[in-house]
Amino acid sequence: MPQVSVRNRLVEHAEDVFRRKGFGGASIQDITQAANVPKGSFYNHFDSKQDLAVEIILRHARTIDLSTLEADGSALERLHEHLIARLEHIRASGIEFGCLLGNFASESITAGERVRAAVHDVLVSWAGSVSVTIAEGQTAGEITTDRPASALAAFLLDWLEGATLRAKIADDHGFLTDEVGIALRALRA
Amino acid sequence: MPQVSVRNRLVEHAEDVFRRKGFGGASIQDITQAANVPKGSFYNHFDSKQDLAVEIILRHARTIDLSTLEADGSALERLHEHLIARLEHIRASGIEFGCLLGNFASESITAGERVRAAVHDVLVSWAGSVSVTIAEGQTAGEITTDRPASALAAFLLDWLEGATLRAKIADDHGFLTDEVGIALRALRA
Repeated sequence: MPQVSVRNRLVEHAEDVFRRKGFGGASIQDITQAANVPKGSFYNHFDSKQDLAVEIILRHARTIDLSTLEADGSALERLHEHLIARLEHIRASGIEFGCLLGNFASESITAGERVRAAVHDVLVSWAGSVSVTIAEGQTAGEITTDRPASALAAFLLDWLEGATLRAKIADDHGFLTDEVGIALRALRA
Repeated sequence: MPQVSVRNRLVEHAEDVFRRKGFGGASIQDITQAANVPKGSFYNHFDSKQDLAVEIILRHARTIDLSTLEADGSALERLHEHLIARLEHIRASGIEFGCLLGNFASESITAGERVRAAVHDVLVSWAGSVSVTIAEGQTAGEITTDRPASALAAFLLDWLEGATLRAKIADDHGFLTDEVGIALRALRA
């Protein structure tokens, strides 16, 4: 039976390697080196780099804190807090490396169908949660009903991915907090 | 003296290869094969893959049609037309490959400093043009003056890159036209 700790070490370190080097740029050797495990041990635990990447995407999805969305009070304020918290999470892990989901999305053609589908599923699920809060804001008259809640939710996440990408190439995140306020103007009733 | 036509052929075909495979995924051989020139001829014309990528980025920047921004009439309508035209351009070259600038931005850490700087410069320059139209809309009372024109312009391009990225992984662009309208709501006075 393969050692559990080796598998855990691979999972623990792979996210950082993928964020820094991208899916294509991260070799199995980069990952086993970062995890400090023998290179040969990789295939005892994963069928392929794609297999590990899918696990990393699902693990990363669990870091998206939805509790801010589910609080009481103004929907626009909850959305604001949620987006700020997400940006803080990305900033804390190094804004110059961007968002793991966005990076994998960008490489989706070469990373293959399973990676593409995993990123897409995570974004759809996240947008679903954001959409519930938006619908509450629509009922409360705070948020426009010109568009379905789902379309407004998808817009917010599209903006977030694009803004994170710019912060990555500008190596500057000073603009992000203010830009949350601009994006949310689009939702106002 | 190196043949001009070989250089032209490399430039002509490299954009497509970079869009399909990304900077890291596109090998010199992929590029020379697509251009139908001998592999060895590459280094007669370019010092490195990075060198060619910078030329491709600057060439791509010239496809951003600014004429729609400079027309007469409502600033919001001109911005709408400009964003739609840009999305059409990306759609026409295969939405599943995303935006060349966005793809290079995502790979900026591994593609290196010159590629990162070239993408950044193109986006800053493009945002500058968008910003002029926004400032006109602010003067006309159509667009909010809560934020500087430059911040609103940067927001629009961030949204555009994020939306293109989602269209790429969803392999669907049906939502894009409507989402231009949502993004522009953020600018309304």
